[in-house]
Amino acid sequence: MSARGPIEYRDAAPDVRAVFDDIKRTRQVDDVNNFWKYLARDPRTLERTWHSVKEIMAPGALDALTKEMVYLAVSATNGCAYCIASHGAAARKAGMSEAMFGELMAVVGMANKTNRLANGYRVPIDPAFET
Amino acid sequence: MSARGPIEYRDAAPDVRAVFDDIKRTRQVDDVNNFWKYLARDPRTLERTWHSVKEIMAPGALDALTKEMVYLAVSATNGCAYCIASHGAAARKAGMSEAMFGELMAVVGMANKTNRLANGYRVPIDPAFET
Amino acid sequence: MSARGPIEYRDAAPDVRAVFDDIKRTRQVDDVNNFWKYLARDPRTLERTWHSVKEIMAPGALDALTKEMVYLAVSATNGCAYCIASHGAAARKAGMSEAMFGELMAVVGMANKTNRLANGYRVPIDPAFET
Amino acid sequence: MSARGPIEYRDAAPDVRAVFDDIKRTRQVDDVNNFWKYLARDPRTLERTWHSVKEIMAPGALDALTKEMVYLAVSATNGCAYCIASHGAAARKAGMSEAMFGELMAVVGMANKTNRLANGYRVPIDPAFET
Amino acid sequence: MSARGPIEYRDAAPDVRAVFDDIKRTRQVDDVNNFWKYLARDPRTLERTWHSVKEIMAPGALDALTKEMVYLAVSATNGCAYCIASHGAAARKAGMSEAMFGELMAVVGMANKTNRLANGYRVPIDPAFET
Amino acid sequence: MSARGPIEYRDAAPDVRAVFDDIKRTRQVDDVNNFWKYLARDPRTLERTWHSVKEIMAPGALDALTKEMVYLAVSATNGCAYCIASHGAAARKAGMSEAMFGELMAVVGMANKTNRLANGYRVPIDPAFET
Repeated sequence: MSARGPIEYRDAAPDVRAVFDDIKRTRQVDDVNNFWKYLARDPRTLERTWHSVKEIMAPGALDALTKEMVYLAVSATNGCAYCIASHGAAARKAGMSEAMFGELMAVVGMANKTNRLANGYRVPIDPAFET
Repeated sequence: MSARGPIEYRDAAPDVRAVFDDIKRTRQVDDVNNFWKYLARDPRTLERTWHSVKEIMAPGALDALTKEMVYLAVSATNGCAYCIASHGAAARKAGMSEAMFGELMAVVGMANKTNRLANGYRVPIDPAFET
Repeated sequence: MSARGPIEYRDAAPDVRAVFDDIKRTRQVDDVNNFWKYLARDPRTLERTWHSVKEIMAPGALDALTKEMVYLAVSATNGCAYCIASHGAAARKAGMSEAMFGELMAVVGMANKTNRLANGYRVPIDPAFET
Repeated sequence: MSARGPIEYRDAAPDVRAVFDDIKRTRQVDDVNNFWKYLARDPRTLERTWHSVKEIMAPGALDALTKEMVYLAVSATNGCAYCIASHGAAARKAGMSEAMFGELMAVVGMANKTNRLANGYRVPIDPAFET
Repeated sequence: MSARGPIEYRDAAPDVRAVFDDIKRTRQVDDVNNFWKYLARDPRTLERTWHSVKEIMAPGALDALTKEMVYLAVSATNGCAYCIASHGAAARKAGMSEAMFGELMAVVGMANKTNRLANGYRVPIDPAFET
Repeated sequence: MSARGPIEYRDAAPDVRAVFDDIKRTRQVDDVNNFWKYLARDPRTLERTWHSVKEIMAPGALDALTKEMVYLAVSATNGCAYCIASHGAAARKAGMSEAMFGELMAVVGMANKTNRLANGYRVPIDPAFET
């Protein structure tokens, strides 16, 4: 096992295993994905990140599908290949259809375009938006 | 009227006025906001951008509120102050409650965090995400 | 004079004055702009940055106007308000017309859009681009 | 054909084929590149994006080569691997020499550097840039 | 008190006050800064963010000053004006001298430059970095 | 040798060889890494970049390890895969332990998160940060 590679369950210390177990139980999966296995190299970051993700991504005022699509939108904006793959898969699992994906990407593309037009044209904020 | 400032309706050429009229009709507002007045310096960009925005932001497989929240998520990620203000206002108008805004920002913050953790730990994409 | 504010010519040490003089001579201006006055707090960064900028922005295989427009395109993409203002002014001084500005921003907007579409759709690089 | 993979011409619906035909005719190529084949999963996004790209990238106040170099500059800034490859190839086809590429990258690198220096030093915009 | 503005201590619910008290005690300050007052609109995000920040920014394998300088480096890269101001102040309080600030910014500028040169030149990762 | 690939020492012109020799001497390595071999296609950019890197990364008010960790933090924020690999290796060589790496990434993740929370909540800068 390379010191910089993933930590597999069989090699994990008890605190890491406890987090892996909670991820598997919460998501009803047989194994955690690579992101968690790499974070496991720093058990405190693993634990803190998982607890935040678990709380933030749970359904609340926004449903789980909307949250996954927002996650995907941010990841596509930042160009994070891993996160686009993992949250794309999570969004589809949560019910994102091909039509929804197409519209999501259309909004992401347009927002990235108009963000730069607003920058380049140096558009001042309308007073109406401040009230 | 400065050549680099906004184009007001009273100073606008017919092609610009036609776009302004369509924006006002579609959104049922009395005046267009600054973004469109600045884009009006380049009538082709104004027309192209408005027609795309009009089509993309209309309800479809995703409802208008979800689309506005995604737009806000991208704008917060990119740090576009104008777009955060304008699409924040639009999302509230479309029904975003304070609780929904709080959860939206929590997802945006978390996605921006884990995007960098995935980068820094150089996490390879799980084969399961490719199928 | 605040330790964190700009360094004016009258307060500058000889090494900073030498750089300020070279900027004024090269650009034929009466005073350097704020960027240089702030960098002057670290004379080595001031000197290194100016010498690189002077060499890079001089006409070569690309003319000065094209270089200023590329600088503006990058600054609009990154959302750097100072750089958008300063390089917008520099590009106009170098000959950028309103029509050229409009087309420049249209390309910048479109590139920022399709960059994210390529990310989100996970488009693999065509073999033809590698040869 | 995977639902998430590219749409080839032989499998495409008539509206998608019409766009593919126009791309091939306009660019005088035998096949469209992967970007368009992936966008074809959402025919409306394909059509809207192609029509905008076709109009924006046509020679106008700026020539086609300058536009391709600006596209490449934005793509390198955003780190979009696909777009760097595709617009690098397009820029070379439009006449970008190795010397031009070298100077372009030098400007892109410098702009990305000074954008952050301006941010970090919190440089206020010179009044002279506002007039 | 606007629903979208800051929550002051006197208007805060008990759970928000508890976090504010812990921030004031930990940092030995009389009042929390605006960031926390705005986050207080969503008490769960306030609590989660503060607990993570408190744990992450405490001295460990890296000292507090190094951590504040890294925070400032990221904020300058992203162009977050608020965070540049707040973490610049925090870094100075933790001992960052003007000379250290100058060198920090020089590294941030250079990294942002070479990140784009590596992108634009499409440099493949050396096998030696993988071992 | 492809015109767009790396320049190896044996194929390099004298000015490029001089830079390669200085890199090897300064870093006490047998060969330069790919970044320099690709930049060598533009000898002026190679020379300018190396001289700046050599000066900026030398120990000063900040030690070499801190500078490499800041470089890595910026590269992870920007998602530059090459730079994450090369500066990760350089930071480890300079003494970054696994615990230090874990804390560095935790700060980078948190900064990227709170940068967006500050954007999204539109937090105004505290007057106290301006003095």
